[in-house]
Formats: sequence, C-alpha cells, structure tokens
Amino acid sequence: MDWNHFKKYYFEFSDLHFSIDLSHMGLTKGFFEEKMDLINNAFREMKKLESGAISNPDEKRMVGHYWLRNPSLAPNQEITTQINQTLNQILDFTEKIHTGKIKGSQGKFKNILIIGIGGSALGPQFVKEALGDKKNDKMSVFFLDNTDPNGIQETLTNPEMTLGQTLCLVISKSGGTPETRNAMLETQHAYEKIGLVFSDHVVAITAEGSKMDQLAVCEGWLSRFPMWDWVGGRTSEMATVGLLPASLQGFDILALLKGAREMDEKTRIDTVEQNPAALLALSWLKATKGIGEKAMVILPYKDRLQLLSKYLQQLVMESLGKENDLNGNCVEQGIVVYGNKGSTDQHAYVQQLRDGTHNFFATFIEVLEDGIQNPIEVEGGITSGDYLQGFLLGTRRALYEKGRKSITLTIQKVDAKSVGALIALYERSVGIYASLVNINAYHQPGVEAGKKAASDILRIKKDITSCLEDHSGKSFTVEELNNILGLKDRQETIFKLLQNLVANPNKGIFVKSSTNKYKNTYSFKG
Amino acid sequence: MDWNHFKKYYFEFSDLHFSIDLSHMGLTKGFFEEKMDLINNAFREMKKLESGAISNPDEKRMVGHYWLRNPSLAPNQEITTQINQTLNQILDFTEKIHTGKIKGSQGKFKNILIIGIGGSALGPQFVKEALGDKKNDKMSVFFLDNTDPNGIQETLTNPEMTLGQTLCLVISKSGGTPETRNAMLETQHAYEKIGLVFSDHVVAITAEGSKMDQLAVCEGWLSRFPMWDWVGGRTSEMATVGLLPASLQGFDILALLKGAREMDEKTRIDTVEQNPAALLALSWLKATKGIGEKAMVILPYKDRLQLLSKYLQQLVMESLGKENDLNGNCVEQGIVVYGNKGSTDQHAYVQQLRDGTHNFFATFIEVLEDGIQNPIEVEGGITSGDYLQGFLLGTRRALYEKGRKSITLTIQKVDAKSVGALIALYERSVGIYASLVNINAYHQPGVEAGKKAASDILRIKKDITSCLEDHSGKSFTVEELNNILGLKDRQETIFKLLQNLVANPNKGIFVKSSTNKYKNTYSFKG
Repeated sequence: MDWNHFKKYYFEFSDLHFSIDLSHMGLTKGFFEEKMDLINNAFREMKKLESGAISNPDEKRMVGHYWLRNPSLAPNQEITTQINQTLNQILDFTEKIHTGKIKGSQGKFKNILIIGIGGSALGPQFVKEALGDKKNDKMSVFFLDNTDPNGIQETLTNPEMTLGQTLCLVISKSGGTPETRNAMLETQHAYEKIGLVFSDHVVAITAEGSKMDQLAVCEGWLSRFPMWDWVGGRTSEMATVGLLPASLQGFDILALLKGAREMDEKTRIDTVEQNPAALLALSWLKATKGIGEKAMVILPYKDRLQLLSKYLQQLVMESLGKENDLNGNCVEQGIVVYGNKGSTDQHAYVQQLRDGTHNFFATFIEVLEDGIQNPIEVEGGITSGDYLQGFLLGTRRALYEKGRKSITLTIQKVDAKSVGALIALYERSVGIYASLVNINAYHQPGVEAGKKAASDILRIKKDITSCLEDHSGKSFTVEELNNILGLKDRQETIFKLLQNLVANPNKGIFVKSSTNKYKNTYSFKG
Repeated sequence: MDWNHFKKYYFEFSDLHFSIDLSHMGLTKGFFEEKMDLINNAFREMKKLESGAISNPDEKRMVGHYWLRNPSLAPNQEITTQINQTLNQILDFTEKIHTGKIKGSQGKFKNILIIGIGGSALGPQFVKEALGDKKNDKMSVFFLDNTDPNGIQETLTNPEMTLGQTLCLVISKSGGTPETRNAMLETQHAYEKIGLVFSDHVVAITAEGSKMDQLAVCEGWLSRFPMWDWVGGRTSEMATVGLLPASLQGFDILALLKGAREMDEKTRIDTVEQNPAALLALSWLKATKGIGEKAMVILPYKDRLQLLSKYLQQLVMESLGKENDLNGNCVEQGIVVYGNKGSTDQHAYVQQLRDGTHNFFATFIEVLEDGIQNPIEVEGGITSGDYLQGFLLGTRRALYEKGRKSITLTIQKVDAKSVGALIALYERSVGIYASLVNINAYHQPGVEAGKKAASDILRIKKDITSCLEDHSGKSFTVEELNNILGLKDRQETIFKLLQNLVANPNKGIFVKSSTNKYKNTYSFKG
C-alpha cells in the first residue's frame, strides 16, 4: 500500500475515537467531486427529513430516529417532551425492577423475555451480544422472535428461565404482528399452566391505542411504553424498543444515546471528507455502481460484534431493497449484506472471497483495545489480540492483492458509546445512500405480498379442515378439495397443507386411502 | 401454480421422509436431458472418489467422508477398521464421561468446551442447535472459535462454566491452527490460575503425530481421537470432530450416521430424478448459470435449523469458491450463501428479496411436524405452527409471483437422522456441482495468502516492539520505523500496528510527541 494513497483515503475522527480507512477501495481522484451534486442533494434531503418533512412519502410519515438522541431537534415541543418523558419513564421503571419495587410472582425479576420480531428483536439481540457480560449483567435476556412452536417451547422450558421471575416485554408497533401475537399467547399459556398471572409479568411496547395497548390497559399489565409512528422498526434501537431492554440489562443507555448523538453531529456536516456517513455511502456507490452489483460483507474482528452483520442485514436490505425509485421507475435496488466475524470466517468463506466470484466488497471492523487485563503471551512477545489484528490486516491485504476492495472502520473499544455511534453511522449512511440512488429508504411495501399470501393460505387450511370435519366419514383427494372449496388451481397449496395436517395428528386429519401420493384421499377422524 | 407442473417437479423420497420441490425453479422441459453428459460425468467422478481415487489432486489426497457412515465402502481394510474402532472409542469414552468413570478435578464433567475453528466448530455448532434441548442434554456446550482475547475471557468466566467440571475438546487436524492454539493456551492459563491441572480436563482431536498429538501424549491428556487426512474440515461432522461432541451431549450418533448413510445410498443412484443431490446440483447450475450468478439464500422455517446457513456457507463457499478449474483456467467460481431462519427473516431482508436486486434463489426448508404436544390455538382452529407453514408457503408464492426462484426441501422432523441426511445431501450436492463446473471442491488454496500476510504482519509487530525497546528513550515516526526495519512501503502496516500497540498499554509503547497523526513519534517506556 502506497503511503501517500493511504494518507489520502484514511479519515480519522479523533474526537469520536473512530476512523474510516478507504485506502483499499480503489477510489480514484475526482470521484467525490464527480458526485458533488448528488451528495449535496442528499445532504439537503437529510436536512428536510431531520426538520420533520414527510420523508416517507408512501406512508406519509415523518422519519424521526435522529430526534431520539437529541430531542431538542424534534419539529415540535410535543415530540421533544414525549422523548424526554419516555426516557425518564425507562430509567424509572428500570430502577423499580432492579430494586425489586416491582417484582414477579416468584420474587425479584432476574430474566427478561423479549417477544418481538424484525426491528423489535434485531437491535436488542445485537446490543445484548455487544455489551453483555454474563458475570455482571443485571438481568439475563431471552428472545421469542418467531412463530415456531418448538422453538418457543424450547425457550420457555429452558431451566434457566423461571417464569415467575421473568419480565416479558412484548414489542410490536402495530400491536398486531402475528408472530409476536402468537409467541405472546404461547407465553401467556405457559404462565397460566403453572398457575401464574401473565399480566403481572408483562410490559407492552407498542403504539398508543394499538390492539396490544388496549389489551395491556384492559388486563392491567405492569407498564406500557410508546412506539411512535415516526420511528421505523429498523431504526428503533434508540427508541423504547432498544433502550428498555438495554437499560434493564444494566447497560449505560445515556452513553448509547451520546455516542449516537455525537455521530449524528458528525454525519450532519456537509463536507464529504468530514462526514463519515457520506464517505461510507459514496464508497458503497462506488463499489456497487449504485445498482447493488456487489454484496457488502461485514467482518468485525471481535466476538462481541458478531451480530452486527445480522443487524445491518435488516437495516440495509430492508431500507435499500426497493422495486421503484422515487419517480416510480422500476429499478430493483438493494445491497446484499452478510458476514459473521473474523478471524473465524477466514476458516469458512474467505476462500471464496479471495479466489472465487468477485461479487462483494468487505467492511472490516477493527477494535483497537484487546479488552482484557494482563494478557498472556501465546508466543514470544505476541498475544491472542495481536493475532486477531494480524489476521485482519493480513486478510485485507490478501484480498486487496486480488483486487477485492474493502473498507476498514476502526473503533477504540466496544462500549455503549461506540455501539451507539456505529448504529447512528449506518442509519445515516443508509439514508444518504438512498438519496444517492433516489429511493425511499423508510418503507417496506414488498413485505405485504407475503403476508397477504400467507393469510390466504391459512384460510384455505381452515377451509380444508372444516370441509373434512363437515363431511366426517367421507374422504377426498387434493383435486376434489380444490373443486369443493371453489379454488382456482390451488391443488399444490392443498397438497402441501395436507402433508402438514397429516404430520400433526392433533388436527384429526389422516390419509384414508393411500395409493399414489397425488391420488390419496384424506379424511377426518376427530 | 399449475398442478401438472408441480407434479412434474416435485420429488418425494418417502423412505427418507424427505422431498425436494423444484416446481418454483422455472425449470423447463429438456433441461435435465441437456445436462445428461455433464451429470453422467459427475456420477463417474463421484464413483472414483468413493472408491479411493486421489480426488483432491492439488493436495494428493483421497476424499473419504462417505466411508465414515459406511466403513465397508472404504478402499482398504485398514481404513474400515480405523473408522469402526474410532466409533467404538467415542461410544466408550462417552459412557465413561456420563457415568463419571472419568471425572474432572471438581467432579463429574457437566460442560464441554470445544476449542476449534471453521470445520472444527461449524458442524458441532449447527448440530448442537439442531438437536439440543436444554432440559435433557447430557452436557452443556461452549465454544472458543476465535483468537479474540475478550471473547475468550467472556466464555471462560461465564458463571455457568465450572472449569473443574468442564471437558475441553481441542480440535485441529494439523494441530497448528493459530486461533485454536491460542484459545487452548488461554484456557490452560485459566485452569492454572485457579490451581487446576489442564491436562486432567482435555482431549485432543487431531491427526496422529501432529504437534498437538505429541503434546497430548507428553502431557498425558485424558484421551486422543484421530483426524484423518482423507476427511476435510468442512466434511468432518461425521468424523470425530462432530461425533464426539454430539455423543457427549447425548445425541444419537448412530442415527446421525444412519441418516447420512441412507441419503448417501440415494445420492449414489445415477438417474437424476431418483437422486436428490443430482436434482439439487442441477438446480443450482440452472439458477446460477454455473458461474455463481445468483446467491443461495437458505431459509429454514424452524428455529432449530437456524445455523444451517452458516454451516452451508462454509461447505458451499469454501468448496466452490475457486480461482481455477481442473484444467488450470481462471474461472473465479463460487456461490454465495446466506440466510438465517423463517419467518423471522421476512421481517429483515425478504423486502429486498421480493422487490430488490434479483441476485439470489431461495431454498426453503420445511419441517412437517410442529414438534410439540398439545399445541394451543392462537385463533379459531389455527396454531403457531400453522402460521409458520403459512408464512413459508406465502413467502415462496410472493417471491415466485415476482420471478424469484426457490427450492423447497421438506423433512418430517428435526432429529439426528434427518440432520445426518441433510448434511449428507449437501455434501454430495456440492461434490456433484463441483464436477458440473469442473473444479476441485476439496482444497482451499486461497486461505494461505491471508495466513502468510498475517504472519508477515506479526513479524513486523514484533520488530517494531523490539526496535523501540532496543532504543528505549528515543522515539520514532512511522516513516523512520519503516526505514530502520528495512521494509518496503509498509508505513501503512506500521501505522495500523502502532495504533493497536498504543491502545493496549501492556505493550509499553506510547506516543512521545503528538503533532499530526502521521508525524507522531512513538517510544517505549517498559
């Protein structure tokens, strides 16, 4: 690496103890200048967004996650007050839980069970791993982030999980996310089965007035925390969704907010070289040619940051993976994100990164402090931490030799402040990148189609069951059911549903006559 | 979905309780026929490999993971005997651990600490998640799969980890993998710090005669289990690497082997439609055009299978991510693999899958049995499990409507047998696909460059430290150090190393005069 080239593309933000190294990105002179108009436009759009414009036009919503860490920026006093009051509510509630002023039916709360999915789980999961310490955490955390009954049961019957000392946080903005609703009902059932009152152990994090909010009021849950319509799920780590779990675990949420706020200030500067998010977004533009041509491989060399890639997978892919641009042109945008951690992944897929299909750029995350006291030497003068850095630098060098590009982000240590800063950096970079390629980063219209198709399928499943029940004693083929139910070409769906019904005998459906799998008849035995 | 099209591309292997549904792959009439010569060649190659040919030509090795589940197929009696004896050794050792015949210094072993990376960790991690059950597992498992000192410390000081009751398995074929060596030394240090003898708690899984094997003999470790040079790391789940941990956890390793053996028999058939691995490999060829054009998104709808994608990431990407084909042409092959689980991922990146860049094909993994007794209804007649299937079918339908292709693999339940079968299926599919595109699936030459670069960097780090120590009292800039050490253009490396040295004060290096980050001078204070 040429020293002058390195110095030109290495950007240090010493007040944040943070740097971005773009020297391995193959940037050429003039690239930033070339994109000047585009980036200036992105800066303008970001200013409008921060001042409360409707920046999510499809859903007619403001986009306000930046206000969460600096409430004085909110577009009106009402929002400022809401944010401040809610933060106090979180700190106050945490104190009551930690001191045992609020207790479970079997004693002081020692566990948290987070029931949420997507943006209501990924942030808390990432932050738990990043900041958690089994010895010192105030509470242990478990997650229900799916509607898999076996997975739910496995968590609820974990011997470490004493339900009477478990505080459940049910998180859903709309209050109607089916996976979350189902997991909540399964949890409630588990409490009731052992004679405990669920409502004495549960908190709602949801939009005011949502179905879940009403339920919480009606059943007298322990507390309710608001979710605001100007905070999207994937940018909600600094809202109640993220702050309440973090606070309950004993993490310093004020430092988390401070780290984000300071990064926000930096990423608000409208000079590219002084704005880490602009540097990142422009690098992505360069690497992917603005059409997602390359995937973003996230490689933090630090076990604590292992879930960063999964967190960013949602933040980046759900924000940028869009069919249409803001003018309604079909563009099929997006950037794929994957990765786990280094050096571990060097023993998994780095072989392909170096030698194989050249369809990615890497982001190395370097942490300067080893994070232990009195390290041992694993050989003369060398520690495990030296190896970790050596592998990072060695791998990025080996990739670079083969023309594989990489960004390196360096932080001093993994703590609440740097984690807040990382989240804020990526939130802003995604927002800027969306402007650069002219898309709405704040909606997710593609998710609806799957939900709609799923609800059709559930309806067909109910209809099959009802039909066989109503005609108890009789039996039908897939094709006959398709006709009886008046469906158009849904034999495949019916076939798949019947396989599942037969595999789960509680449904009472069985194969009556078995000849050939497509001619089998199905019946109900109750 | 047209019912006739579905029936044509739905392949059921009822004796394995397994099906492959290719109806959503957009296969057209004649595709299999077109590829007849290629696939027949792959079948021939696979026969040679199974009979002991040198199928990894670069490393001049046999490729024998198929013999592990049917030792009678091994090319000579010696190997057959080794496999059988080792299986007995595993079962025998397990019994001694479970009954307490072999104990730790603080009592019966209750934990396993697996120290290994890549192929020595990913299989055991996947199988632990797939088959584990916190209530009933015979032992709890922890992993050290990196050289991050903070991560290692976090695991070793986990309150659940009583070192005197922890059985350490150190896994490294060569016995010289640095991450594993480092983690082992850190572990040994942790034992010694509390006055325990490490060798009374540790087992070696390594090649006979390796450095680690010698150490184990010399220090009198509890036991040694062989790794054979004809089993690659990424196909070692059915070797000692995978079987010993699984057996210690109380999983049915004979069923695991049986599942793999039965799948092997099926994937040995040389008729495409009767061979699930041929079907899979040909589908990949179709989807990626044989040049890795699309990524493979793995979406198991079952929490237990959450780590399948990470396991396959290594198996597929390390096997297929190759620069040259078998004739020495530069081809830069590979297939990207990522994914976590459904329906959770629908709330993360499925937005991009449906609407965004069309650069993937999905593999849905469906599990028919819900895996719980007495499910509750979450609404009239519908269970959490019904939702799970509904989301799978709904999402694949929504993707298909937008031209996004998918494969669906269906298994009856997640148990040792089906997990063994899944592993065997993908092992064979990768082998066949490698033949179809004419590459060596069994080496990993690209990994060496990174290791070499890392060891250069560690040497420079030692040299910097020695130089500053030798000139204690003096201080030097990055550029001066580059000259003194006689390096060519390594200022960037020196700069990065110094940042790390300064951040970790135990090294005794500090910034002497700080003016501008590139002009700083560094010194040693001891």
